Amino acid sequence: MTTKFQTLSPALRTLADQHCHAGAARLADADLASRLSTLGGWSSADGRLSKSFAFANFHETIGFVNALAWIANREDHHPDLTVSYSRCAVAWSTHDAGGITENDVVCAAKTDRLLA
Amino acid sequence: MTTKFQTLSPALRTLADQHCHAGAARLADADLASRLSTLGGWSSADGRLSKSFAFANFHETIGFVNALAWIANREDHHPDLTVSYSRCAVAWSTHDAGGITENDVVCAAKTDRLLA
Repeated sequence: MTTKFQTLSPALRTLADQHCHAGAARLADADLASRLSTLGGWSSADGRLSKSFAFANFHETIGFVNALAWIANREDHHPDLTVSYSRCAVAWSTHDAGGITENDVVCAAKTDRLLA
Repeated sequence: MTTKFQTLSPALRTLADQHCHAGAARLADADLASRLSTLGGWSSADGRLSKSFAFANFHETIGFVNALAWIANREDHHPDLTVSYSRCAVAWSTHDAGGITENDVVCAAKTDRLLA
C-alpha cells in the first residue's frame, strides 16, 4: 500500500489544505462518490471513510499513529484506528452528522498527505 | 474502567516484572484460567488476551498507546490495538504459538501497570 513517497493529485492537495468546520452535513451519495474518486484507496461503508496503511515495522506504524493524532487534535476531529505490527486501518466518520461529511474527506486527504 | 491510579496485587506485580522469552508455548486451559484470575478485567477469546481501557480524551488515549508501544518494542512483542477518541482496546496474542502464551500474560500485566 505504501511506497516511500506517494504523489498527490492537485485535487487531493487542495482537499488536504482545507480544515474541519463545525456542523458539517452528511454528504449526499453523489458528492461522496465524487470525493471517493478524488481520494485514492478510501472506501465508504457503515457511514465511515476507511483505508488501511502498511508499514515496515511497529516503529513506523506508531510514528504514523502519532502524526495522525497531531492532525486529529489540530482539527479537533478524531479517527478510529485499528493498529497492528505493520498496519494501521484509519476510519473517519462524523458522529453528529450520522455519517461521512466533508470534514472526513478533508481528514482523509490529510492522512494521505502524510505519505506524500 | 480506569481511575487515576489502580492498585496491583502482589501476584500481578510479580507478573509485570517478568520479560518475554522466545519460543513460549501456548498456555494450557487450566494455566490460562489461573492467569486470568490474577489479571483483572482481561478476557480470552479467539486465542487473544483482551481488555478495553477508557480515557478522558484523545490526548490521554494516544499517550497510553505510546507507553504501550514502548513496552512492546522493549519486549519485542506487539499488541493489536483498537483506538478511538477515549478508548483503547488491547489484544495480546502469540502468533507463533497459535494462541495465548506466558508472554501475553506478562505483557497484559505490564499494560495494567501503566494505570497503577
